[in-house]
Formats: sequence, structure tokens, C-alpha cells
Amino acid sequence: MTEHTVKAFDEDIGELRGLIAEMGGLAEQAIARAIDALAKHDLDAARRVIEGDKRIDGIEEEVERLAIRLIALRAPMADDLREVVAALKIATVVERIGDYAKNIAKRVPAIEDHGRIEPLSLLPAMARMAGEMVHDVLDAFAARDAEKAIRVSDSDRQVDDFYNAIFRVLVTYMMENPKSIGQVAHLLFVAKNLERIGDHATNVAEMVHYAATGERMAERERGGSPAVTL
Amino acid sequence: MTEHTVKAFDEDIGELRGLIAEMGGLAEQAIARAIDALAKHDLDAARRVIEGDKRIDGIEEEVERLAIRLIALRAPMADDLREVVAALKIATVVERIGDYAKNIAKRVPAIEDHGRIEPLSLLPAMARMAGEMVHDVLDAFAARDAEKAIRVSDSDRQVDDFYNAIFRVLVTYMMENPKSIGQVAHLLFVAKNLERIGDHATNVAEMVHYAATGERMAERERGGSPAVTL
Repeated sequence: MTEHTVKAFDEDIGELRGLIAEMGGLAEQAIARAIDALAKHDLDAARRVIEGDKRIDGIEEEVERLAIRLIALRAPMADDLREVVAALKIATVVERIGDYAKNIAKRVPAIEDHGRIEPLSLLPAMARMAGEMVHDVLDAFAARDAEKAIRVSDSDRQVDDFYNAIFRVLVTYMMENPKSIGQVAHLLFVAKNLERIGDHATNVAEMVHYAATGERMAERERGGSPAVTL
Repeated sequence: MTEHTVKAFDEDIGELRGLIAEMGGLAEQAIARAIDALAKHDLDAARRVIEGDKRIDGIEEEVERLAIRLIALRAPMADDLREVVAALKIATVVERIGDYAKNIAKRVPAIEDHGRIEPLSLLPAMARMAGEMVHDVLDAFAARDAEKAIRVSDSDRQVDDFYNAIFRVLVTYMMENPKSIGQVAHLLFVAKNLERIGDHATNVAEMVHYAATGERMAERERGGSPAVTL
């Protein structure tokens, strides 16, 4: 590549990284706001999360357009091409994480007895863990930090353990409060969505690792311990 | 491109299409087999579905390697590049569909009362619908058939309606049979996994449409009617 091409490529890849950091920030915020809306039964806040997801979708499309243009015009090789492909794939996953947050926000109207369903109070802590994974894995991408990506992947186990605990608490609660089953079933899905966000952050960690090193992260079951997947 | 390059590109893209068709066939089969294992409480069959998912993951990696090599060596432009990028993204989604089937298979041991939980009998029909969507959308990709992709996207509404009906039936069943809540909660997730498979097939339909026409399919909410997302 000529010096000019290298500079143009660096600018483009910088733009790509910037877009992904922006998407990630929005997704992280959406998770926190959706859970907050759920805990407070705040329908307006929930609607804002749902509306805001369009921005995340829009950035994903921008990433795709830019990545395709970059490949077509700059013809990057080896490491650079791997990074562009990683950006493309990571954008797809972050868009999906935004969908999970939106899905949580859509359940807000269904949880009318938010003040009375005690296990609801467990969800914000789980949401914080999942949100941190998203935050950290995008930091790892920005810094091409394979070690940090591995740490994110490891922390998925905690999110999974949390999910299993919440699953049991919610099922017990349903047995004791059969009239609230309809509402609590939604909370089961909220917990599952958070667990999936952790899985997706782990997938991104694998992509970051591959983009940074050219080697796949040692295989581990997505979703951690077998119990999780139940 | 020289004639030689065109031919080489056509061969590579043919290989890429072949790999995606193979992945799709395996994913479709995994859905059917997982639900069958669930209905019959067949632990061996469930284990085979779980094991078989590694093959799907392996093909996704092959698709990625081939797509990257193809972009690097053949430098495809416009329509061709769009198709390679679509193949890359579709492989990611099909891999995810395989994960959902695996997740259903992992729930098989938890459903001990398979003969007694009547709502379980609703799941195979829903699984057939979801499996058909996967089948049809990959046909649409192979044929670059944007119209067929739109039809698949439309049929997602039926899967969503089915899901909503099953959700209500399962919640009612839980209220009437509180002792079975632990098991039936797993069936809620199975139904949700099938609904997500329909959503993912719809995402692929959008990618096929874009790859075939260069235009985005008219926006529709993923997951169809608002009620679905609950």
C-alpha cells in the first residue's frame, strides 16, 4: 500500500472503531435504563429505550456500509482485513444486545405489581454485571487487548451463576404466588435476556481475541456451566 | 476482472453457497430432532443434537475463512462483495439458530413428565413452522430470490401468533399445576427459542433481500406484532 492508502485506511478503521464504541455505549445505556424502567414501572422511560434502539440499528447499517466501502476501496490484507471483518460481526452482535434491552423495555407494562414481586430486586445487579461485560469487551476491541477479552469471557460464568439463582428464586416465587405467574414469567425472560447479553459479550470477546491475535480463544461452551443453558 | 478471475470467483462463491446450504440443512434437522427428543424424553437423541452443533460451528468458521480469502484474493466489487458479506452474516445467524436447537436439546433431561404435560404437544407444530422458515430462507439465498425472502419474513407473524398462544396455555397450565412449574418454565423457554428462530430466519430474509437487490426490505419490527415481544 502507498503511504496515502495506509493513512486513508487508518482513518476509515478509526471511524469504524468510533461507530462501534458509540453503538456499545448506547447498548450499555439501554440495558441500564430498561432495567431501571422495569423496577420503577416507568412506561415513558421504557418507551424511550424502545425508540432509542432505532439509533443502534442505524449505526449497525453505517458500520456495514463503511466496512464494505473500506474493503472495496482499500483492499486491506491479513490483520487489517481481519479487523474489518471483526468490526462487521461485532456490530451485528451489539445490535442484537440492543434488541435484548429493547425486549426488556417492552415487558415493563406487563409488570404491574413491580413493588410487590420481591425477586424483581435481584435483576438490577445482574443487569449491571451484563452491562459491564458489554462495556469491557468493547474497550478490549478498541485497545486490541486479547487478554482483556479473555477476562470478559471468564466473567460470563458469574452472570450465568446469577441467572441460575434468579431462575430458581422466580420458580419458587411462582409456586407460592400462582396468581402472579403471568407477570413473573416475564421476569424469567428478562433474566434470560440478561444472561444472553452476557453470552453475546462473550461472543464478542472471542471475535476481539481472533482479530487481535489471529487465533481462536480456547473453546469454552457459550453460556458457561451446563446448568445455565436450562 | 479477467476471465480467469471471474471463473475463480464463481467457484469460490459456489463453495460459499454450498457451505451455507449445508449449515442450513443441519440447523433445520437439529430443530426437528431436538423437539422430537423433547416430546419423547429421548436423552440419547438430545445428546446427539448437542454434539452435532459442533459441526455447524465448524462450518461457520469455514465460511468466515473462505469469505476472507475470497475478499482478499479476488477483490470482488459491488453486487459480488455484497453477496460475500451477506454469506458471512448469514452464517453467523445460522450458527445462532443451531445454538437455539442445542439449547432446546439441553432442556430434554429437565422435562421428566413429558407424557403428562399436555401443552408439550403444541411445540412440534411450532417447531415445524420455524424449521420451514429456515429452510425457505436459505432456498431464497441460494436462488437470490428477494420475493421469496419477503414471503418468509411475512410468515414470521404466524410463528409469533403461535408463540403467544403457547405462552398463554403454558402460564395457565402452571397456575393449575404449581408443582410442575419448574418443568413448564423450561417449555416456556423452548417456545421462546422457536420464536427466536423465526426472528432469525426473518433477519436472514432481510440479508437475502439486501444482497439480491441492494435495497433494504421495508422496515418491520423484528418479532412481528407488539404482543410477541412480551
